Amino acid sequence: MAEEASPTDPLAGIAEFDFDRGTRRGYPEAVLGEGKSVDQLVAIATALRDRGAQGGGSAQTILFTRVDPDRAQAVCRVLPDAEHDPLARMVAWPGTVPEPAGEQVLVLCAGTADIPVAREAWLTARYLGRPADLVVDVGVAGLHRVLARVPAIRAAGAVVVVAGMDGALASVVAGLTAAPVVGVPTSVGYGAAFAGLAPLLSMLNACAPGVSVVNIDNGYGAGHLAAQITAPRG
Amino acid sequence: MAEEASPTDPLAGIAEFDFDRGTRRGYPEAVLGEGKSVDQLVAIATALRDRGAQGGGSAQTILFTRVDPDRAQAVCRVLPDAEHDPLARMVAWPGTVPEPAGEQVLVLCAGTADIPVAREAWLTARYLGRPADLVVDVGVAGLHRVLARVPAIRAAGAVVVVAGMDGALASVVAGLTAAPVVGVPTSVGYGAAFAGLAPLLSMLNACAPGVSVVNIDNGYGAGHLAAQITAPRG
Amino acid sequence: MAEEASPTDPLAGIAEFDFDRGTRRGYPEAVLGEGKSVDQLVAIATALRDRGAQGGGSAQTILFTRVDPDRAQAVCRVLPDAEHDPLARMVAWPGTVPEPAGEQVLVLCAGTADIPVAREAWLTARYLGRPADLVVDVGVAGLHRVLARVPAIRAAGAVVVVAGMDGALASVVAGLTAAPVVGVPTSVGYGAAFAGLAPLLSMLNACAPGVSVVNIDNGYGAGHLAAQITAPRG
Amino acid sequence: MAEEASPTDPLAGIAEFDFDRGTRRGYPEAVLGEGKSVDQLVAIATALRDRGAQGGGSAQTILFTRVDPDRAQAVCRVLPDAEHDPLARMVAWPGTVPEPAGEQVLVLCAGTADIPVAREAWLTARYLGRPADLVVDVGVAGLHRVLARVPAIRAAGAVVVVAGMDGALASVVAGLTAAPVVGVPTSVGYGAAFAGLAPLLSMLNACAPGVSVVNIDNGYGAGHLAAQITAPRG
Amino acid sequence: MAEEASPTDPLAGIAEFDFDRGTRRGYPEAVLGEGKSVDQLVAIATALRDRGAQGGGSAQTILFTRVDPDRAQAVCRVLPDAEHDPLARMVAWPGTVPEPAGEQVLVLCAGTADIPVAREAWLTARYLGRPADLVVDVGVAGLHRVLARVPAIRAAGAVVVVAGMDGALASVVAGLTAAPVVGVPTSVGYGAAFAGLAPLLSMLNACAPGVSVVNIDNGYGAGHLAAQITAPRG
Amino acid sequence: MAEEASPTDPLAGIAEFDFDRGTRRGYPEAVLGEGKSVDQLVAIATALRDRGAQGGGSAQTILFTRVDPDRAQAVCRVLPDAEHDPLARMVAWPGTVPEPAGEQVLVLCAGTADIPVAREAWLTARYLGRPADLVVDVGVAGLHRVLARVPAIRAAGAVVVVAGMDGALASVVAGLTAAPVVGVPTSVGYGAAFAGLAPLLSMLNACAPGVSVVNIDNGYGAGHLAAQITAPRG
Amino acid sequence: MAEEASPTDPLAGIAEFDFDRGTRRGYPEAVLGEGKSVDQLVAIATALRDRGAQGGGSAQTILFTRVDPDRAQAVCRVLPDAEHDPLARMVAWPGTVPEPAGEQVLVLCAGTADIPVAREAWLTARYLGRPADLVVDVGVAGLHRVLARVPAIRAAGAVVVVAGMDGALASVVAGLTAAPVVGVPTSVGYGAAFAGLAPLLSMLNACAPGVSVVNIDNGYGAGHLAAQITAPRG
Amino acid sequence: MAEEASPTDPLAGIAEFDFDRGTRRGYPEAVLGEGKSVDQLVAIATALRDRGAQGGGSAQTILFTRVDPDRAQAVCRVLPDAEHDPLARMVAWPGTVPEPAGEQVLVLCAGTADIPVAREAWLTARYLGRPADLVVDVGVAGLHRVLARVPAIRAAGAVVVVAGMDGALASVVAGLTAAPVVGVPTSVGYGAAFAGLAPLLSMLNACAPGVSVVNIDNGYGAGHLAAQITAPRG
Repeated sequence: MAEEASPTDPLAGIAEFDFDRGTRRGYPEAVLGEGKSVDQLVAIATALRDRGAQGGGSAQTILFTRVDPDRAQAVCRVLPDAEHDPLARMVAWPGTVPEPAGEQVLVLCAGTADIPVAREAWLTARYLGRPADLVVDVGVAGLHRVLARVPAIRAAGAVVVVAGMDGALASVVAGLTAAPVVGVPTSVGYGAAFAGLAPLLSMLNACAPGVSVVNIDNGYGAGHLAAQITAPRG
Repeated sequence: MAEEASPTDPLAGIAEFDFDRGTRRGYPEAVLGEGKSVDQLVAIATALRDRGAQGGGSAQTILFTRVDPDRAQAVCRVLPDAEHDPLARMVAWPGTVPEPAGEQVLVLCAGTADIPVAREAWLTARYLGRPADLVVDVGVAGLHRVLARVPAIRAAGAVVVVAGMDGALASVVAGLTAAPVVGVPTSVGYGAAFAGLAPLLSMLNACAPGVSVVNIDNGYGAGHLAAQITAPRG
Repeated sequence: MAEEASPTDPLAGIAEFDFDRGTRRGYPEAVLGEGKSVDQLVAIATALRDRGAQGGGSAQTILFTRVDPDRAQAVCRVLPDAEHDPLARMVAWPGTVPEPAGEQVLVLCAGTADIPVAREAWLTARYLGRPADLVVDVGVAGLHRVLARVPAIRAAGAVVVVAGMDGALASVVAGLTAAPVVGVPTSVGYGAAFAGLAPLLSMLNACAPGVSVVNIDNGYGAGHLAAQITAPRG
Repeated sequence: MAEEASPTDPLAGIAEFDFDRGTRRGYPEAVLGEGKSVDQLVAIATALRDRGAQGGGSAQTILFTRVDPDRAQAVCRVLPDAEHDPLARMVAWPGTVPEPAGEQVLVLCAGTADIPVAREAWLTARYLGRPADLVVDVGVAGLHRVLARVPAIRAAGAVVVVAGMDGALASVVAGLTAAPVVGVPTSVGYGAAFAGLAPLLSMLNACAPGVSVVNIDNGYGAGHLAAQITAPRG
Repeated sequence: MAEEASPTDPLAGIAEFDFDRGTRRGYPEAVLGEGKSVDQLVAIATALRDRGAQGGGSAQTILFTRVDPDRAQAVCRVLPDAEHDPLARMVAWPGTVPEPAGEQVLVLCAGTADIPVAREAWLTARYLGRPADLVVDVGVAGLHRVLARVPAIRAAGAVVVVAGMDGALASVVAGLTAAPVVGVPTSVGYGAAFAGLAPLLSMLNACAPGVSVVNIDNGYGAGHLAAQITAPRG
Repeated sequence: MAEEASPTDPLAGIAEFDFDRGTRRGYPEAVLGEGKSVDQLVAIATALRDRGAQGGGSAQTILFTRVDPDRAQAVCRVLPDAEHDPLARMVAWPGTVPEPAGEQVLVLCAGTADIPVAREAWLTARYLGRPADLVVDVGVAGLHRVLARVPAIRAAGAVVVVAGMDGALASVVAGLTAAPVVGVPTSVGYGAAFAGLAPLLSMLNACAPGVSVVNIDNGYGAGHLAAQITAPRG
Repeated sequence: MAEEASPTDPLAGIAEFDFDRGTRRGYPEAVLGEGKSVDQLVAIATALRDRGAQGGGSAQTILFTRVDPDRAQAVCRVLPDAEHDPLARMVAWPGTVPEPAGEQVLVLCAGTADIPVAREAWLTARYLGRPADLVVDVGVAGLHRVLARVPAIRAAGAVVVVAGMDGALASVVAGLTAAPVVGVPTSVGYGAAFAGLAPLLSMLNACAPGVSVVNIDNGYGAGHLAAQITAPRG
Repeated sequence: MAEEASPTDPLAGIAEFDFDRGTRRGYPEAVLGEGKSVDQLVAIATALRDRGAQGGGSAQTILFTRVDPDRAQAVCRVLPDAEHDPLARMVAWPGTVPEPAGEQVLVLCAGTADIPVAREAWLTARYLGRPADLVVDVGVAGLHRVLARVPAIRAAGAVVVVAGMDGALASVVAGLTAAPVVGVPTSVGYGAAFAGLAPLLSMLNACAPGVSVVNIDNGYGAGHLAAQITAPRG
């Protein structure tokens, strides 16, 4: 076969893992589980484990995101000290949450069905080293639920708002705090929610400044960004 | 010419006005100004005036909607007792507001740029015979502005919410009242507002039940519907 | 775990049910089944049952919407006096229909495939306390079917029109009555129906005033709104 | 210049007119005015005139469609025996309407603002040799207007329905006749009409069989097709 | 239950079959199988059979369209003299093809994957009483395949073009004949075909006049329309 | 007139300016010029000036965004100490840039045509009190232009990337720094750029984590957010 | 049955294979497996085998694309000397790769999940006779991975860039070489990737000239085009 | 001002022209006129002239694309030896066409209204040094026009197909030649052409392999790519 790769590289033809990203950028590369076969994920997990055994490992946690139960178990068999959160569809290796540093991250979740994405954001922020809290089911249909959290909202260095359907929570929260709000539209809803298009557009047009948006259902990206915003300063 | 029409009908080839709709349905037909030429509007106004002079007129107000200044003036020259509201782009004939009856209509407007549509809704409700109020600039970026109106919101038999951009006001208001909320998304905004698509989708996905939606910028339709909802009952 | 919740709250990390909404807004919160796991629904049903047993229950019916058979059965095991309508994918607790009050709600359904959504609207209106009727298969391809219902249409205080494909029924019905028409576009159809986009746009552009629209397939929202419109007046 | 063209062809680098289409296909090529400069249209008109003077002309009428007043006048200066219909934005050369043959074409127009497109369809059918009638303002908001035309609808060999907004007229008419219905969605409307998308989708999903659709605002195409359907049979 | 229906009507709450459409409009109502349960289809088939046994039947064939194998078999158990074409997903009752009358219908199919839709069109035209032919795999990538069919194309009174992907065949065919071309875009293709949107738009913008379009994958509608166009004239 | 407003409020019926937002949220409300009439802007400017003269003014700069030359001049006549940047379509009052504090903001602009939006972001960050730099024309078609700025990129506490067309710059920059990247898609481009949709989607799908997105052309929002991210910490 | 086909043609009613395309156009027709039944593919494979046995075969390789395992095995049973690449979902018959000629084709693949499409492009180019290499996982989030391949990129006569999500790799690569870049957007990604729409638009708007685009996931088309571009010149 | 730029660079804050691209990539950077002010274009033209006068100029032609008459004249005043093609909206400096080398480029244009884009492609290929021909008005509605050009099509090393509306010409031409076809969808058309979306999708789904697509109306990109494909080989 004419593929360009050293025959001794177990990842040849599969991936070119950016092992140095943690050093270079401060945060290690994560592994997106979706779209990869079990075999490809096992090969990547093995390469990570072997490199770690050779002393080339990172002190930082590697996250496998959007992994279904089969893929998660295959990864955990290779990396037994990994932690699997089925709801968030995430595997973290090593599984120990680092000692938190930096400002507080607050993840707000509009409805019960948004919990998987919200947990993905919350866990990502924690594994990247931030103190982080998660509050569920505070949609704007009952404003008292939001208003009861104003102190927590104002105490956070970054707020992640996870919401499907009308996505209105992002605007409301941004009007209550000076901290940046990271909006995560979700595919929760049906019909004219168009798989997340409705809250995506709603959040992009938030009438309060201070809101920016990541991809639909991208809890990982939101947690990562919140961790960057609240990182300890030199 | 082979067009089917009586040669004595001044509207032949232009329109077939539904003169009896007021009697049949309770509300008279309105004249959409947009897309009609000045000549066509003058012909319609003339037919209305002539029919009125012949005793076939309606006691009810006829509304000309979405009329630019040129069209409005042309109509008013034919119907001198008409009233023109330039901001709402509306002409009412006759211009006298009827004595209000039925429940209260409240029109809430998220931003200053939404005022034309909001006024169109407010004037329509008033000309159709309802008591109606208009409150401007109560977007959710400053929740205190909405919360200050809770008593007025709860006193209304129907609330019209006029908002562009994120359209979040509809959800928030619907969570505060037992009355129906009529959402009017507006084309106010830019970029990913996509000329009103963002608030349209947002309102269709309102997380609070009790919201229904009319066409983008359709203040007339919203005011009409609110008047129907709050009509006096037999 | 750092989640904010009292350890004694069985809904901690799952939902924050708005138990007081019935008192505050007149209509209790419904539970959207879609997107919730069986375990989450059981937890919510249990919390409702326990609160009821403690005398904190509402006299009003709680609706579980868009529940598939598995979820419905799980809820009914916790709440044995609930009623399950499989066609409408709805569970009502308690299952007894309240004594009707207010004006008549009429649900019109364009085709046989629209029945699930139409039944959801019809049952919602009835469980919220209105007298309600359901008429199926009155699409405009055979106008005589609509025209035969004109007396029923004119007797209703609100008409819900449930239609997929061209959604034309909403305009036709609105031209026949002074009452508000709530349009529910459905995902019935194929190809350029685009999962309900075609009737959604058609209804938003209804050439007859008096039509407003809820989300595609949102029978619950339409029935709720119709109940609000026809509610008995103080 | 390297362009491929005979230096003696006045249309070189501009157009390659299909002079023989009338003979080959039965209907001559039309000239779409939109997107062509005045100079280009004059060159085409001149080539047609010269060819006609040389005896190579067609007995059939050549139509210039979607020509604004400036372009129309420029064409008419070259072809003085042409006829210009400003409302339909059409120039016909020669301007005499041929003796009608074949079955009747009926053009129905939902609203006054649809008249330009409807006239384009009506004139096209007439210039292609069919007996044709035009009826305006028969939208479904007042069903009695449609029902009053049932005899004319049933007498036609093809019905062209021109409608913007909800486009519901096409379904209603198709349910009343055995003849083919050609739907022409128009860009009349605003907001969620999305420049004709709403009636386009509505007509494509007509719940009555027998409806087919041409491009938005394509009165010419509809009139042409109706003339083909109703053509005299060998 | 409050549903409006006579208790003796076996279709109560299911459908209101338009038994007289064949007499009134010339073509009987068809039964769309998609979106109906097996039980609902069985009820409709039974009602048709019973009415036929009572002498109220139509001489015309009733078509059940878009029926999967389970639904088709259930219908055929009730109507043993029906004919099932699995490829076209169609059941015809009674199954005998009527004696053809009127002009020839030609169905052209661009690729092998378009065959189900093409057969649906072809069978519909035949069951509605027309002489009809079907030619497969004549996409424009090999123009010689189209050019070889020019005599057949020119002999037809209506041509149905069934094509996915670029939908280019409709324009090419329309340029070769004076007869109307009915375009049926199909959902064949992937990626930017967007489930039929690409050929739908392509056919709506056909550069040759004489093309009109039905819904994506709507072979039934195309065959029905072609039968109307080619119907014998009084 | 029935409008709710104190007759002594010069903004009655126009706006309800959130004068306390600067105190409450840390950043004052800005005035979106687009969609407001000259008269409305003059009224708002006057109210701000009067309130300032009465000692109720904010020490913070008020920004008028998306103001065309006419609107800008009208505002400046009322507020002579304001500063107008025509390229950014922005007026700042008072015009003095505050002493910078917090971390560095870097605005990168992909092409010359993106400059207006980039300047809006850059000026907003500066007027909100941050040290900020602007670098133009560093699109990825010439990677050396980006690579030459790596030191500046790595020194910034937040990077704003302003790009139309493919929006690829956001991903590339995010891969080079640990700081948050705020993507601003612009409407620069034509055709399939679809007025900014292409870079919007591209940035939402950035393959490097750390990118979030604001509305198309929303330089103000991006500058505001960058200022929040880089604000001095207590 | 009235289908037009010779009864002796085993492909009658299934396909009209363009056996002479290899001779006429230089590249043989490929068989798209998707949308064809197993039986249809077996009939085509049999016809190819039989024709080959009769000496009418082509020396060129026939490709079956987008074939799932079942279809692939059925084809291979008929054509035992075929080669099946499950990852690329491709069967080649005969399976021997021809001796390469012409310029080098380089296939670059942004992420692991893009490998199936990338392999399809790479194999197509090889089976059509070009020297070709494949490099995986060189997304722009780690620019060093791209920059390390600059010599290989500059040595190629055509570069195929396979990327989902932001599709940014196409612009970056095109800025580094004088050779044409063929962009293949993939459906890899989620949410606002909209099944490949994001990289499709991104690549169509590549800020570097020299990029053209094929359909989403169309590895075959890209490999074919690259082979055409790099073909040996007479 | 805090902008990063050397005070002696006349392009500071405007552009960072990639003067070395011609050397590095073989083709010089072009200047997109659209979105740049007259002043900005004059500054760029001046920088190019000055650099040329200092001996740092390129022997290669610099193209200014999408320049309206005002911008073109301003550029030509600075660069008097430039050539302006108003139809193509292009200025070339220096204006002399280089001696052609490499294979033939053929530009085919479906309709008269596509000429501006087609000329842009044709001129670009010529100024980049290829022999190039332009043929106009060969749409597929009259296949004989295409078939008459088969020899020219087969003689070309690359064919650029410029078409709006149905875009069908690309598929037809690709089926006739072994050379790559570059499709340029244009915004010519109306209604459901959706400003070029229809031919864009049509060309992306071309049923003949060998077609790739550039942005809507991007004649420059197509001509550039065709020049790359047909470049003389080392």
